[in-house]
Amino acid sequence: MEKQAALERLHALDRDIKHLRQVTAILQWDQETYMPPAAVEGRSEQLALLEGIIHEKSTSPEIGNLLEQLGSTTIKPQGDTDLPDVERDFLRVVRKNYDRAVLLPAELVTESARAEGISQAAWVEARKHNDYKTFMPHLEKMIGYAKKKAECWGYTEHPYDGLLNIYEPGMTEGSIAGVFGPLRTRLSQLVQRISAKNPPRSEFLAREFPKDLQAQFGESVMKDLAYDLSQGRLDISAHPFTTTLGPRDVRITTRYFPTNVLSGLFSIIHETGHALYEMGFADNIRDSSLGDGASMGIHESQSRLWENVIGRSFAFWKGQYPLLKKLFSDQLTDISVEDFYTAVNRVQPSLIRVDADEVTYSLHVILRFELERKLFSGNLSVMDLPEAWNDMMQEILGVKPDSDANGVLQDVHWSMGAFGYFPSYAMGNLYGLQLWEALQADIPDVEACIEQKNYGPILHWLRAQVHIHGCRYEPKDLIVKITGKPLSAEPFINYLEHKYEQLYNL
Amino acid sequence: MEKQAALERLHALDRDIKHLRQVTAILQWDQETYMPPAAVEGRSEQLALLEGIIHEKSTSPEIGNLLEQLGSTTIKPQGDTDLPDVERDFLRVVRKNYDRAVLLPAELVTESARAEGISQAAWVEARKHNDYKTFMPHLEKMIGYAKKKAECWGYTEHPYDGLLNIYEPGMTEGSIAGVFGPLRTRLSQLVQRISAKNPPRSEFLAREFPKDLQAQFGESVMKDLAYDLSQGRLDISAHPFTTTLGPRDVRITTRYFPTNVLSGLFSIIHETGHALYEMGFADNIRDSSLGDGASMGIHESQSRLWENVIGRSFAFWKGQYPLLKKLFSDQLTDISVEDFYTAVNRVQPSLIRVDADEVTYSLHVILRFELERKLFSGNLSVMDLPEAWNDMMQEILGVKPDSDANGVLQDVHWSMGAFGYFPSYAMGNLYGLQLWEALQADIPDVEACIEQKNYGPILHWLRAQVHIHGCRYEPKDLIVKITGKPLSAEPFINYLEHKYEQLYNL
Repeated sequence: MEKQAALERLHALDRDIKHLRQVTAILQWDQETYMPPAAVEGRSEQLALLEGIIHEKSTSPEIGNLLEQLGSTTIKPQGDTDLPDVERDFLRVVRKNYDRAVLLPAELVTESARAEGISQAAWVEARKHNDYKTFMPHLEKMIGYAKKKAECWGYTEHPYDGLLNIYEPGMTEGSIAGVFGPLRTRLSQLVQRISAKNPPRSEFLAREFPKDLQAQFGESVMKDLAYDLSQGRLDISAHPFTTTLGPRDVRITTRYFPTNVLSGLFSIIHETGHALYEMGFADNIRDSSLGDGASMGIHESQSRLWENVIGRSFAFWKGQYPLLKKLFSDQLTDISVEDFYTAVNRVQPSLIRVDADEVTYSLHVILRFELERKLFSGNLSVMDLPEAWNDMMQEILGVKPDSDANGVLQDVHWSMGAFGYFPSYAMGNLYGLQLWEALQADIPDVEACIEQKNYGPILHWLRAQVHIHGCRYEPKDLIVKITGKPLSAEPFINYLEHKYEQLYNL
Repeated sequence: MEKQAALERLHALDRDIKHLRQVTAILQWDQETYMPPAAVEGRSEQLALLEGIIHEKSTSPEIGNLLEQLGSTTIKPQGDTDLPDVERDFLRVVRKNYDRAVLLPAELVTESARAEGISQAAWVEARKHNDYKTFMPHLEKMIGYAKKKAECWGYTEHPYDGLLNIYEPGMTEGSIAGVFGPLRTRLSQLVQRISAKNPPRSEFLAREFPKDLQAQFGESVMKDLAYDLSQGRLDISAHPFTTTLGPRDVRITTRYFPTNVLSGLFSIIHETGHALYEMGFADNIRDSSLGDGASMGIHESQSRLWENVIGRSFAFWKGQYPLLKKLFSDQLTDISVEDFYTAVNRVQPSLIRVDADEVTYSLHVILRFELERKLFSGNLSVMDLPEAWNDMMQEILGVKPDSDANGVLQDVHWSMGAFGYFPSYAMGNLYGLQLWEALQADIPDVEACIEQKNYGPILHWLRAQVHIHGCRYEPKDLIVKITGKPLSAEPFINYLEHKYEQLYNL
């Protein structure tokens, strides 16, 4: 077969797999939003069937043959040097996905998928009854499967590296430890300095805010951020998420709580950040494996940048507060924009990651990273995990869980076997601020833009620098390409220190 | 392979195909209800991919081998006589579907599917611009494909039989003509007698009825009819429909018009009728090819029975009118339940099938049946079709289309190549009334039940007699099994004559 024909055939096979993944996403979106309750069992059958078809297509020997024909090997995944750059990036990603799929024995895939469902159900029960012991054997099992997978995929230094590679291609336990180390130290210091001060008032955030008015405000902000409703929509689900259902179909969800005016809104901003990324891939890669986020961390950088750096800034609220105050004139009558901004950024060491503020959030993640690397190097047993969790919580945040339900059992990830996923959340903060420094240099009046609700220049910059590339570059290369420097915690910690020194008069 | 093992494997393959069809239904449901507009192109790609996978699985030689092993042949589809009845019915249906799939050359499937999309788009334009000429070549093409398919599938008497068999298994052009003949004569006579009378007032049905209150009433009726919201939901779409997305997931849609209080409601009742059928299959057949309507006509019998025989009865409105009048006290202040019931049943020969009343509706269908059989026997050309349409309209309904848009171009079916589909709509009326006569014999106080909004006994009877069987029996056998008689137009025409003689004082 001619090289061009081989490339076209490989693109066709890749597109089919991508489209089947989108079909899976449609089924999952429906399940979380509109599906009637009795349909859940049938939906699982449909999803399992699709997973089987996707696995079969992903491991088809034809893909292996085409890759070889185009010069792509595991060692030299980009293939023949005479191919255009974008095709070589394409081959690298297809090779990576293919190798990852074929290296896993089919029984391991089926067996661990089956165990995952059972483990997740056990976790739900264990958390409900604050009963870590009943969850232990499942956690052992999921760690066992993850170790086996890491062995199949291979690694050079640490078994944990094989798992990290799924979420942060090219990153290792060592490189992450290198940035998390200084981050931990300086964040802990900042938290201590803040904790010594009197907290600002924020009780008014918990007044009664009708859901329909919250939705009105949230949708207005979403439109201001240029979320494109011709190729997306906002719905309600128990847990907010973003999902891509087609090349022009990226949907987000949120949820509203009447006595928490911020939760629904910040979920919208966060998910809009993810969605703008997915909507921004270049047209020539959108419908291929290159039309994907560069990594979980880069994806989080987009959502957190919009949610925190922009959405929790004084400039943002100077622009948006008038509408909020108009909608909630009773609830906010005595609250100035300065009061509101200060309350939005209240720092308080607490037990639950998803409720954490901007300063303490990354410490929750570092805790999980430290425990994961110990679990995978064999320096920590599943039996000793809760105690290690509680001790480290005390050590880095100064609070101690009153129960395992509010401690080691709080997150769903481990029950699903998603080890190596947590670091991405904090990496997102680091990537985000490093990008933000570069953006500020290119758009010196960015603060004035935000204040005027003119977010266009920011999106334009992110589109051109980040979104358009999809996953053509590994995160460690992408960050150098854009900012000229390798990943560092400095910009993030500098941003936090600067912001919170002002807010708390440190 | 052991017989039992072969049967189990066949069931597994059959379930996979069924589940993939459900996945297709999910994608289509989403497309009609919530999908953002820019997603339409990507969705077509996903659907085409799934169709390809379904076709591949439906024609897998493994199915053919298993059928043979179980003694099922095209001539003797039910297979070995020592198998349980339900398994023999299963083999019959699987054999029929398999033969139908493998008899079509793959190119014909692809080619006609591609032409279908183009033809439908051409029809939309042609209807918009009242331009039959531009649609003609597409119609020629679609008839050509349908003829080719009929040849592939085979028939004994009339090429049209091969197509009818898709929608009404076991029925032929001859057997349908046998029941439609007397129906046409007596319906035309009834229409003439009614047309000689003064029509009742009905202008109040077009007052302004707010959509949200219409929805409140419609949902209340839907719940009264025992539509199960734990395994279904009601949404809004441009054209009302029912779709089955999983073994416990049957959804309906409707639409509301502010100045037509009946349209949204009767769509709900009609679609609820379809949904109750799909929800009522026995558990042991629900997740197999037997878990399907016995035919399009039997399916329509369920929707029309609830919509017309029950929903347009005086007893129904005696029960439901108080709530309607409460919700719309302004609009209906001067309208008695007798006035309302009379208006609901106003008869008026008109041009458009979907807007037709209970008496004239079947004549619209008979017109299409007459034209279809002539098109397929070669006695009518596509060129002469509009004139034939208009002449026959004048002949049987006494009205003449003012344009092709309101005449030959009004329905989507022919543009999709769905020839042989139309008769099912009228067959539904016939099956429905024949069932209703049997039901009345078993439940003598059925009218009192309806008046008390106690629809349970009716559903219970339909479940036990019709729903539970799925498509285990061909329609012509099912109707004999339940009523002791072959299909006849008598019960339907008797019902109409009796009802409208009273209403119009004939």
